[in-house]
Amino acid sequence: MKTIVDLNCDMGEGFGQWSLSEAPDEELMSLISSANIAAGFHAGDPNSMDRVVKLAQQYGVGLGAHPGYNDLQGFGRRYIRTNAEELVNDIVYQVGAIREFGRRYGIPLQHVKPHGALYMEAAVNEELSQWMVDTLQKISSDTIIFCMDVSKTYEVATRLGHPVVREFYADRDYDDSGSIVFKRQVARPDPEQIAEKCVRACKEGKVRTVDGNDIGIEFESICFHSDTPGALEIGRAIRKGLADNGITVAAAATVLEQAS
Amino acid sequence: MKTIVDLNCDMGEGFGQWSLSEAPDEELMSLISSANIAAGFHAGDPNSMDRVVKLAQQYGVGLGAHPGYNDLQGFGRRYIRTNAEELVNDIVYQVGAIREFGRRYGIPLQHVKPHGALYMEAAVNEELSQWMVDTLQKISSDTIIFCMDVSKTYEVATRLGHPVVREFYADRDYDDSGSIVFKRQVARPDPEQIAEKCVRACKEGKVRTVDGNDIGIEFESICFHSDTPGALEIGRAIRKGLADNGITVAAAATVLEQAS
Amino acid sequence: MKTIVDLNCDMGEGFGQWSLSEAPDEELMSLISSANIAAGFHAGDPNSMDRVVKLAQQYGVGLGAHPGYNDLQGFGRRYIRTNAEELVNDIVYQVGAIREFGRRYGIPLQHVKPHGALYMEAAVNEELSQWMVDTLQKISSDTIIFCMDVSKTYEVATRLGHPVVREFYADRDYDDSGSIVFKRQVARPDPEQIAEKCVRACKEGKVRTVDGNDIGIEFESICFHSDTPGALEIGRAIRKGLADNGITVAAAATVLEQAS
Amino acid sequence: MKTIVDLNCDMGEGFGQWSLSEAPDEELMSLISSANIAAGFHAGDPNSMDRVVKLAQQYGVGLGAHPGYNDLQGFGRRYIRTNAEELVNDIVYQVGAIREFGRRYGIPLQHVKPHGALYMEAAVNEELSQWMVDTLQKISSDTIIFCMDVSKTYEVATRLGHPVVREFYADRDYDDSGSIVFKRQVARPDPEQIAEKCVRACKEGKVRTVDGNDIGIEFESICFHSDTPGALEIGRAIRKGLADNGITVAAAATVLEQAS
Repeated sequence: MKTIVDLNCDMGEGFGQWSLSEAPDEELMSLISSANIAAGFHAGDPNSMDRVVKLAQQYGVGLGAHPGYNDLQGFGRRYIRTNAEELVNDIVYQVGAIREFGRRYGIPLQHVKPHGALYMEAAVNEELSQWMVDTLQKISSDTIIFCMDVSKTYEVATRLGHPVVREFYADRDYDDSGSIVFKRQVARPDPEQIAEKCVRACKEGKVRTVDGNDIGIEFESICFHSDTPGALEIGRAIRKGLADNGITVAAAATVLEQAS
Repeated sequence: MKTIVDLNCDMGEGFGQWSLSEAPDEELMSLISSANIAAGFHAGDPNSMDRVVKLAQQYGVGLGAHPGYNDLQGFGRRYIRTNAEELVNDIVYQVGAIREFGRRYGIPLQHVKPHGALYMEAAVNEELSQWMVDTLQKISSDTIIFCMDVSKTYEVATRLGHPVVREFYADRDYDDSGSIVFKRQVARPDPEQIAEKCVRACKEGKVRTVDGNDIGIEFESICFHSDTPGALEIGRAIRKGLADNGITVAAAATVLEQAS
Repeated sequence: MKTIVDLNCDMGEGFGQWSLSEAPDEELMSLISSANIAAGFHAGDPNSMDRVVKLAQQYGVGLGAHPGYNDLQGFGRRYIRTNAEELVNDIVYQVGAIREFGRRYGIPLQHVKPHGALYMEAAVNEELSQWMVDTLQKISSDTIIFCMDVSKTYEVATRLGHPVVREFYADRDYDDSGSIVFKRQVARPDPEQIAEKCVRACKEGKVRTVDGNDIGIEFESICFHSDTPGALEIGRAIRKGLADNGITVAAAATVLEQAS
Repeated sequence: MKTIVDLNCDMGEGFGQWSLSEAPDEELMSLISSANIAAGFHAGDPNSMDRVVKLAQQYGVGLGAHPGYNDLQGFGRRYIRTNAEELVNDIVYQVGAIREFGRRYGIPLQHVKPHGALYMEAAVNEELSQWMVDTLQKISSDTIIFCMDVSKTYEVATRLGHPVVREFYADRDYDDSGSIVFKRQVARPDPEQIAEKCVRACKEGKVRTVDGNDIGIEFESICFHSDTPGALEIGRAIRKGLADNGITVAAAATVLEQAS
């Protein structure tokens, strides 16, 4: 039975004049406690990063880098065969860019969350997770890594004693293994159902899978996506559901402190 | 009559399997005291940045970000009409990326030097120089800006009391106004002539222009380019010329300290 | 007093999962007689091109290439300093790509219309217009060039006897010189006012400028933009306005044939 | 025992000011009978394409499109997970671009050869090969496909009756299955050894594998790479070896005609 949880969302997923989200950034930012900000490889450009990092500062939201595969056309949702060292160089690059905009607005980097196919690859690729965690320990030992409970990333971070937060995916389906079912395109879901799913996960630690079974689920943060149709309504419904059940929303760093 | 001067060079000007320089990075790095490292917009990728920043650490070379226009095809040597705020967002992004690789290898960011057409634009565009210096004061008040003596960048940095280093261009021609003659392609020059030109500039503070006149020139750093044909020989000739005349080569930060 | 006019629209202005237009491509395509299709430089990717060219075939719409500056982030609305030869190579490349998708669906290339800042640059840059028309005469002598009445492009095409269509800009303002007022961002206009402006231009050959004066305007095609907010309503209002006044809408090639 | 064979080479593998090849394009072009020209996705830009297609015309070399994955940094040598339809759209786009430069210089498209990881993927992915051949039959039924003997591409093209040419890789090693051993980086080989390997393959139809066995090999074209160190010497040695053994070099289309 949780009394406190982080609520994170991918932000700044535009490029130039394009945007994936129908929801205004400012309203989304007012609902969440941690923001994963696109850093120019799968989405985002220096102007969007500047704008969204500033909003994170204004709303007291935890600042996160959201590094992805260097694939604007595929929105980072396509796997690219590369070695772990090169992928981690990509991550360092994107982390540095986000951290610098944080310096501009006086907020520290709270977390790193790989995006899309890179997140899924790290979940199953121990070498990549190892290299990523090793590197973060060197450049930013207090920066939290976001990942799934069932993942190599979580295993490695825990083993190395690196701060880590597990996510519950509000707007994605789970399979019986506890992994999310990855999709390139997502349909418009029902905000109320999502909110109930989140509240149940917080209170009972359980989620219903696509196969109809209940599985246990552990997490410190709830994630929803700004490009899921109806993102704003989803965010509001989750906030209301949590509030109605006495569950506080706080940034990932705060949630981790309370847990320790 | 100078007794100490910085020697800087653009480094890491490759992309993927491509490289512009025929000179090995490691040998170039052994000759210089400050490195301007391409950050992914006009050249450079996370792998080259990682490799070259590591070399800067190994050779004790001052770490510099070399942000350019986002134009890989044009190698940042084409002007793009954009407003100052957007260009400075581009600079913040690239500075952050280089600084992060510096964190990885334990070296601080020493300086920022805009590349190519962005450098030339800042030299004549007061609004851009103002926005750039203001922003650097906020995110990195001790980071030195590299520029030409005759430039808005130097005027603005001096007025705002921001640390600034003026460059003498070893492998570029000057016009009578004291500005360098900008070229997209450069021929193979004579290393000895370049070395003599540098020594004379250090000892007499003068340079011969393309119109055949001598003009006064003030600087704290000598610049040559890794993509100039014969770069390695040029670097060696300059080093020898300076040594033969009792002029010490030291990183820009050291040169500034001595001057103050 | 016109009895027939072309109606053209920029189409396929997306990239990967992004799209600039709120209007469904298929509904827009049903309203127009010529489509200018983004070819991957300022917008568009092979998937969007395939989809939109197929729609052009299905709706019997004239197929046009819409080449732009190679600047996805700036959406081709930023001037880049390049020489005419390189820009025309960019145009040849993009024309070839669109023409190939036309082969796939069995429709010929009807026209070429440079996009955004490239269109505006060609309008004032005689060397660029000359090089572009010369090249089109070589690779595609019957491909119509779209341009403004007051432009070097029109002068050059007319002088060289190359088929050319002048555009009337439904959703842009004119200045007293007869040039459109170029904007990077456009507000949501009133469809009825736009339709009236088009009908008046067809019937009286006149348009009111931003300075409040009436100027004469000559054209064979009316243009509106799919990224103008309310594009679908604008297209419908123009079609209704033209129909109510007995003005037929036909592809540019047909309009030119009738005129000759 | 062959008396005629095509000799093909990847050309135009630069981007902006970068180039992978130390060999001058013009000298390479004088040695070969078919050129595979990079079309902007893994290498090449409109300026290089214009220059190299013009050289192909001047030297009477068969014009080929060399489409790759859209991955400049990885030089198209990294697999990207994408569906067959999207990859074939990429191929159509790149084929169109090359064909258009061919129009400019009055030469038809002779062949299409996928590059790097895309070539290797098509070799094992029947759906991709099927979609590619089906599409080429529609847009360009006489355009020859280049592939390996042991490949789905060859199987599909043969089954559908599409013109196809099998390649012998002069500067790559073979494994016992008859597939080439794919590498991201290649060392400098001995031109004489390569020439002997080619002559033997032509005369005996055999090649020694990395495991030391002789396997049979069938082909109509010999391929070497312009980015292999020493490419010019390799090309000259192959030409001399073939001439010394009475084997004529002719464009792929001519070789196919003779065979039929």
